[in-house]
Amino acid sequence: MTDDARTDEQLGAEDFRAVFRRHAGGVAVVTAVGPDGPRGFTATSVVSVSVDPAYFAFSVNATSSSRAVIEAADGVVVNVLSAAQSDVAARFAAPAQDRFAGIATEVLPGGEIVLSGAVGWVQGRIEQRIDIAGSLLVIARAVRADLGPRAFPLVYVDHAYHRLSEDSRLR
Amino acid sequence: MTDDARTDEQLGAEDFRAVFRRHAGGVAVVTAVGPDGPRGFTATSVVSVSVDPAYFAFSVNATSSSRAVIEAADGVVVNVLSAAQSDVAARFAAPAQDRFAGIATEVLPGGEIVLSGAVGWVQGRIEQRIDIAGSLLVIARAVRADLGPRAFPLVYVDHAYHRLSEDSRLR
Repeated sequence: MTDDARTDEQLGAEDFRAVFRRHAGGVAVVTAVGPDGPRGFTATSVVSVSVDPAYFAFSVNATSSSRAVIEAADGVVVNVLSAAQSDVAARFAAPAQDRFAGIATEVLPGGEIVLSGAVGWVQGRIEQRIDIAGSLLVIARAVRADLGPRAFPLVYVDHAYHRLSEDSRLR
Repeated sequence: MTDDARTDEQLGAEDFRAVFRRHAGGVAVVTAVGPDGPRGFTATSVVSVSVDPAYFAFSVNATSSSRAVIEAADGVVVNVLSAAQSDVAARFAAPAQDRFAGIATEVLPGGEIVLSGAVGWVQGRIEQRIDIAGSLLVIARAVRADLGPRAFPLVYVDHAYHRLSEDSRLR
């Protein structure tokens, strides 16, 4: 293995960011209820892991203000934002005092928060949190879901939101 | 906790799929070199987990023909596809005999495969594979990366590819 030396290599943060800036992500708001009430943050890192049984995952950066809430939460709701909800995405990505102010929500029987207007949501029970240098990769078992209005979703890439539509679709 | 009974709940596969069909994903081709040569598959599940140190993750469904290769691989390359590469995405998602036939590639010093025309790529060393009912959530340490042509990326949602552009961008 002439390659052994490379196992000590680690890509620099700037080179890594440069590639992921070009990788598009569907935009969701992850909500959780903490000791101080509902909290939420915009995430472009939600992925399906297993369909049957249904599991999803998402990451929370070490520097995120929402990390502590996710560290302590039992459950989360992933709200998939529509192309018309870039204002909601921006709100839940900004350092606002109360991100929920003026946002229409529905409360599930267990107290979990669903954002109105999302194209769909999935509620999950957190089963694993993998700590990677302070960042968290969270694995949740899906327990409940519903669809919202039928609409194209919001996408984020290179510091900008994009609106999918019939015009962006390839045939 | 009146909610305890629900911790046994599991969302049905069809309800789960219905929400994730509406969740857009940036499109990548993940390549790895197996005992039978280069292999690759189209993935919409690649996410950044940590920036410094640089780690990413992706999932491989239990039913994927690429699962065995990823189970055995030491490393992978994530190739982020451009909006012009929907043909490449379709090729690496189809049950083709040789997905690399006619595809322009570059070979890294360690033998890893980069697809020409990708807007960027990251090479990673697999550090963890989390098995969830046969599906894998893979965590890799990023060791090398580069950018390709400057272009908007390809996105997948609801069984269709979408091309991001200046026209889809919100201001």
